[in-house]
Amino acid sequence: MRFFLHTHPQLMAIPMRLQSFASAQKWEGGVSMVQGASRGIGLEFVKQLLEKNGKGHVIATCRNPTKATALLELKNQFAERLNVLPLDVTVESTIESARSITERYGSLNLLINASGILSIPSVLQPETTLSKVQKSSMMLAYEVNAVGPILVIKHMWPLLKVGGLLGTDRDVAVVANISARVGSIGDNRLGGWHSYRSSKAALNQLTKTISVEFARKKDPIACILLHPGTVDTDLSRPFQRNVPAERLFAKEFSVQKLLNIINNAKQRDNGKFFAWDGQEIPW
Amino acid sequence: MRFFLHTHPQLMAIPMRLQSFASAQKWEGGVSMVQGASRGIGLEFVKQLLEKNGKGHVIATCRNPTKATALLELKNQFAERLNVLPLDVTVESTIESARSITERYGSLNLLINASGILSIPSVLQPETTLSKVQKSSMMLAYEVNAVGPILVIKHMWPLLKVGGLLGTDRDVAVVANISARVGSIGDNRLGGWHSYRSSKAALNQLTKTISVEFARKKDPIACILLHPGTVDTDLSRPFQRNVPAERLFAKEFSVQKLLNIINNAKQRDNGKFFAWDGQEIPW
Repeated sequence: MRFFLHTHPQLMAIPMRLQSFASAQKWEGGVSMVQGASRGIGLEFVKQLLEKNGKGHVIATCRNPTKATALLELKNQFAERLNVLPLDVTVESTIESARSITERYGSLNLLINASGILSIPSVLQPETTLSKVQKSSMMLAYEVNAVGPILVIKHMWPLLKVGGLLGTDRDVAVVANISARVGSIGDNRLGGWHSYRSSKAALNQLTKTISVEFARKKDPIACILLHPGTVDTDLSRPFQRNVPAERLFAKEFSVQKLLNIINNAKQRDNGKFFAWDGQEIPW
Repeated sequence: MRFFLHTHPQLMAIPMRLQSFASAQKWEGGVSMVQGASRGIGLEFVKQLLEKNGKGHVIATCRNPTKATALLELKNQFAERLNVLPLDVTVESTIESARSITERYGSLNLLINASGILSIPSVLQPETTLSKVQKSSMMLAYEVNAVGPILVIKHMWPLLKVGGLLGTDRDVAVVANISARVGSIGDNRLGGWHSYRSSKAALNQLTKTISVEFARKKDPIACILLHPGTVDTDLSRPFQRNVPAERLFAKEFSVQKLLNIINNAKQRDNGKFFAWDGQEIPW
């Protein structure tokens, strides 16, 4: 982490004038973190958050910022409004390092957990049958898709509380975990994809569990789950064959819909699971 | 495994005369496996299966049979009807070894996955707040409570198919995974217990996923999830303080209720989640 920051000073994005403000500074347009931002839906969230209204700060995290060319291009364009940080959800120390840097903002108004894995050639393959279920695949999917996002929320929680109190156009700070309809148990009609399905069901349960604590403590945070639809990204590419064209969304469309849900989220939405069109999905 | 069997020949429970039967032998009273049988609910299942009707074979598995004194006492009492085997759900090779021995029966009519962890002093403690969530606890609970039972089903599947075709008093072979109401996302009103809750939600999703495949392939297997209630066992003991006396069940009562559900399970129950009283629990 230190080494990385020293050798890539252009990624030390918080301008000095901002660092000198008090920790309860309210940033115009708010401070958003997108975790898993190097490509796909996460990258598109960063783009739209930056392009939408010409204000607001975005902290974009990914495992290896030096290789995240699209993010670095955005960095050239948006300079002080974008901070690119290394964060690997499977290595908790990197989450803690990202939190240390985020603490300089003093608050966080939005956290989007966009990282996720479905398939990795010769490592993780969505299972077509119980016979092909491997322990290693299940453990990896759970670690990345369920445990990772929860650890990020754990560490950003104090900053989210401050952000929720300071407010933006939203009444509350929002935590949006990108889940998937295939994580729904009640909606599971096709079977298969054991590792992915169970990791997303676990993410749903963890998000619900956290939302109960936020509500009990009257934290000004709404924690929601989002199903983006089947979006044309690297994640879905190997599985798009049977998806009708009208059901395969451009990431621009899906993220626009999801940001609409996020921007209209209220305290009462805490703990809910929404599809891209705003419909609630059964557990 | 080999070493174990050689040094403890009394645990090599399948009598030679049974081994000589053809693999499609129909055992009077059926062949049942109880995985996680050294204590608590699992042990009680073994007892009741053996005591109920004076027939039927039971394969009881646990991590360390040599230390499972209660099981070994049952072994003295029921001799040829009880087979005690070592099986650790976190070590897949032990599941494969147990399957090899079970293959000598040729079929399996009932598989009960009763193993599960909630707390282990200084290793795993049910979380009271997000701040206390540890990656290691989450991974361990998932490995034991969700992945383990699924791997057991994966390896016993061929034997269950045969058992379902041969039949017992039930129309189908039954797989019963012991879940818990706190694994329900829709019923989660108290929060906390992040590791346990998410592992059981994942187990629910995995069981549902498997049930879809069983149904599609017309396998004569009903795969169900069971909530035993809060039962007076080692697992619940540290958490019984706030449980009203009338809600804390003796294991004899709970297992009697669960066996009633199991014995009446039909194909249409495949993929369902039942409480001890037969009521369905929301996902």
